[in-house]
Amino acid sequence: MVRRFAAAALLVSASPLLAQAMPPPDKVAQLRDAAHEGDQYAWEITEGLTTEVGPRLAGTEAEERARNWAVAKLRQMGFANVRVESFDMPVWTRGNESAEILAPFPQPMVVTALGNSASTGPGGVTGEIVAFDSVDALQAAPDQAVKGKIVFVDHRMPATQDGSSYGQFGAPRRQAPTIASLKGAIAIVIRSIGTDHHRNPHTGAMSFADGAAPIPAGALTLPDAEQLNRILKRGRPVKMKLVLESQQLGNRASGNVIAEVPGQDPSLPPILVSCHLDSWDQGTGAIDDAAGCGIATAAAKRIMDAGRPLRTIRIVWFGAEEVGLLGGFAYRAKHGKEPHYALIESDFGADRIWKVDSKLGEGRRAEAVAIGKALAPLGIVTGSFERAGGSDIGPMLADGLPGVGLNQDGTRYFDIHHTPDDTLDKVDPAQLRQNVAAWTAVVAILSGGIEEPKARKTR
Amino acid sequence: MVRRFAAAALLVSASPLLAQAMPPPDKVAQLRDAAHEGDQYAWEITEGLTTEVGPRLAGTEAEERARNWAVAKLRQMGFANVRVESFDMPVWTRGNESAEILAPFPQPMVVTALGNSASTGPGGVTGEIVAFDSVDALQAAPDQAVKGKIVFVDHRMPATQDGSSYGQFGAPRRQAPTIASLKGAIAIVIRSIGTDHHRNPHTGAMSFADGAAPIPAGALTLPDAEQLNRILKRGRPVKMKLVLESQQLGNRASGNVIAEVPGQDPSLPPILVSCHLDSWDQGTGAIDDAAGCGIATAAAKRIMDAGRPLRTIRIVWFGAEEVGLLGGFAYRAKHGKEPHYALIESDFGADRIWKVDSKLGEGRRAEAVAIGKALAPLGIVTGSFERAGGSDIGPMLADGLPGVGLNQDGTRYFDIHHTPDDTLDKVDPAQLRQNVAAWTAVVAILSGGIEEPKARKTR
Repeated sequence: MVRRFAAAALLVSASPLLAQAMPPPDKVAQLRDAAHEGDQYAWEITEGLTTEVGPRLAGTEAEERARNWAVAKLRQMGFANVRVESFDMPVWTRGNESAEILAPFPQPMVVTALGNSASTGPGGVTGEIVAFDSVDALQAAPDQAVKGKIVFVDHRMPATQDGSSYGQFGAPRRQAPTIASLKGAIAIVIRSIGTDHHRNPHTGAMSFADGAAPIPAGALTLPDAEQLNRILKRGRPVKMKLVLESQQLGNRASGNVIAEVPGQDPSLPPILVSCHLDSWDQGTGAIDDAAGCGIATAAAKRIMDAGRPLRTIRIVWFGAEEVGLLGGFAYRAKHGKEPHYALIESDFGADRIWKVDSKLGEGRRAEAVAIGKALAPLGIVTGSFERAGGSDIGPMLADGLPGVGLNQDGTRYFDIHHTPDDTLDKVDPAQLRQNVAAWTAVVAILSGGIEEPKARKTR
Repeated sequence: MVRRFAAAALLVSASPLLAQAMPPPDKVAQLRDAAHEGDQYAWEITEGLTTEVGPRLAGTEAEERARNWAVAKLRQMGFANVRVESFDMPVWTRGNESAEILAPFPQPMVVTALGNSASTGPGGVTGEIVAFDSVDALQAAPDQAVKGKIVFVDHRMPATQDGSSYGQFGAPRRQAPTIASLKGAIAIVIRSIGTDHHRNPHTGAMSFADGAAPIPAGALTLPDAEQLNRILKRGRPVKMKLVLESQQLGNRASGNVIAEVPGQDPSLPPILVSCHLDSWDQGTGAIDDAAGCGIATAAAKRIMDAGRPLRTIRIVWFGAEEVGLLGGFAYRAKHGKEPHYALIESDFGADRIWKVDSKLGEGRRAEAVAIGKALAPLGIVTGSFERAGGSDIGPMLADGLPGVGLNQDGTRYFDIHHTPDDTLDKVDPAQLRQNVAAWTAVVAILSGGIEEPKARKTR
């Protein structure tokens, strides 16, 4: 009760100061509802990028084609200051990959290499499987039990609406390869960090800690991991042949694609609306993250169509997110000391937004409250006023820049994430529009009073 | 009304004759309910075969391992007369396969060869795509439009509970390769005959008609087919590189595995309960058709456990079903002229049975009605009295042998059918038990009065 009263009191006291900078609620509602009913921009971007470019692994020629596509598209949509800010990055690429149980029950398995896996070479590696049900169990094992073997870590991730299981249960991908290497394993396979039951393995970034020699590291699909478990339960030694060919190509160019809706007052800090342009290599990166680019950009476009916002809206399609937030770090290195009015990123699929968090600072509670009120009709819960999130923008939020977190429903996200199955058919147009509606409302509130076009012609 | 009355009259007149040959309804209900609550046999077979053998393509060494596994399992379960009836068959095997759009939007696609596809050789074939939305449209096209190109047939199959869409919408797989070849196409790709949206292509048998030279023939996943469509809609020529390596190995051995529950009266015709042992090569053949073997065999085992049936129950695990019902034809050639009391096959997954059809002949309506009554508590509708179905048993049913059709729900069957996704996790143990319950009731009724063991010991 005390908390609620305090919040209400703050709203009253802050309102007069900010009222003139926020568009009136009915204007926000109108923009929101128009997006919810009829947005096509997000779909056009999502469909276009996934169809005309498809997979776009960071640092490759495909990501370069994606940047060119992005620049052309953002210009064609009428944004200003469209440009690429380049950076260099080390590039790893996938080659042939296969897994096979040689004994006791010969059969093929479906595997994919994790990013930065060492190559087995074309001949593969063959060894006995030693299995662990968690990273802790692997860590606790004596080196002798692991040395010369292929480690299998079978840690299970549950689906969660907020995606929090990914942080906790992603350890086998992020930490286990290093531990296995240090204990002398010849390779490692993990149960895919995913929640589906299809024969599509989940790849993802991984790197070996200093002192750990890179070893081949792959992910089995969930049905294959369960099969391997059943085979292991028969109690006989299990021998696997693993082929994971890959290459480290050295440094190549990546880049962030940036565009703007210039504000009425260019001296004010911009609102950054963002997504990432790169994708993993086996799907077409529809939910990760073409849809995010569609959502963020559609919101900016809809505000631009409505008139000139007080503050500049800066759109950033980050490069090289998947391989370590490299685009986000490059932007931070160049612009992270400049003031930003708010950072927002869409990078958790295209299912409906269910909760909004924000961390705008004490003096800006009125905006946070206005955002909550504007989103409630979309079925969005107001969460924390002390938290915002995002992948590329994460380090800058940690630095203290203000932000908003528009949390998408993650219940089925990890069914698809980082698999060949990340394709356009996984994007639900109705839920995509709900995202755009929420984003449009938030960007309208944050970007300030919208000056309607002075000489709009009607025919 | 007339029909209903006639059926009732027949029941009354036929009942006295058959009553002594059928176990009492409460005995059937007891067997049914015990299976529904606690059957483990079907799961053990399904789990065991898919785990300890895995994929078992007809005519290969893997199918031979499966036969050995089956013989050992059926003996261990206590069945009599366990044997293999061998036959020879031509064997086709898959090699490397890939597809790639070279222009206008370079990107990989996921493809798999259809059975009996010609090989492209390791270098693949490259050509322009010419697309048709149906087999009829391909048939109607002038040869000139097809010659030297890669045909794409994009016929869409809806999901249906009774699976009838497979017959109608399977034409692109069965007929289009021949038509494309005759018109001079260099290769053909079809939208997978399936109803899912995963990057797992659906293979299946196909053969070229006389006079049509084999060409490479593959199936794209549904997401890839839709992607190809979107690319084609941009209106520019689309160039694809297709690699489908495969081999015709000549004649190899396959076989039917047979086992029996000997009846009290060996002079009476047997009831044949069946499934197929072989599977396609990319999944572990869980729903197609390890589960079918589990269901049919569990029912026979449960009757055997209850006592000695009047009639012999003959279990047949057919070989080489997937490549053209070869096991069924081999059995028919050897035993098709012998009288059979009824043929039943389980080969449509492991989801619940929703309808029972039968074609037992006019004098046996009482049995058909008793079957309907015994299955109703499982939520099973009584369908036709003039129809039965089954894959391997189909030709013998067409010859006029009596049969029962226990129709499984096919709504999700073609999500998984003939894909790498056909794995154990797709089998729902509860629905599997419902199948066993229904089968147990049917086999109990058909196999006649069960003689309880005379010297059952209780401890």
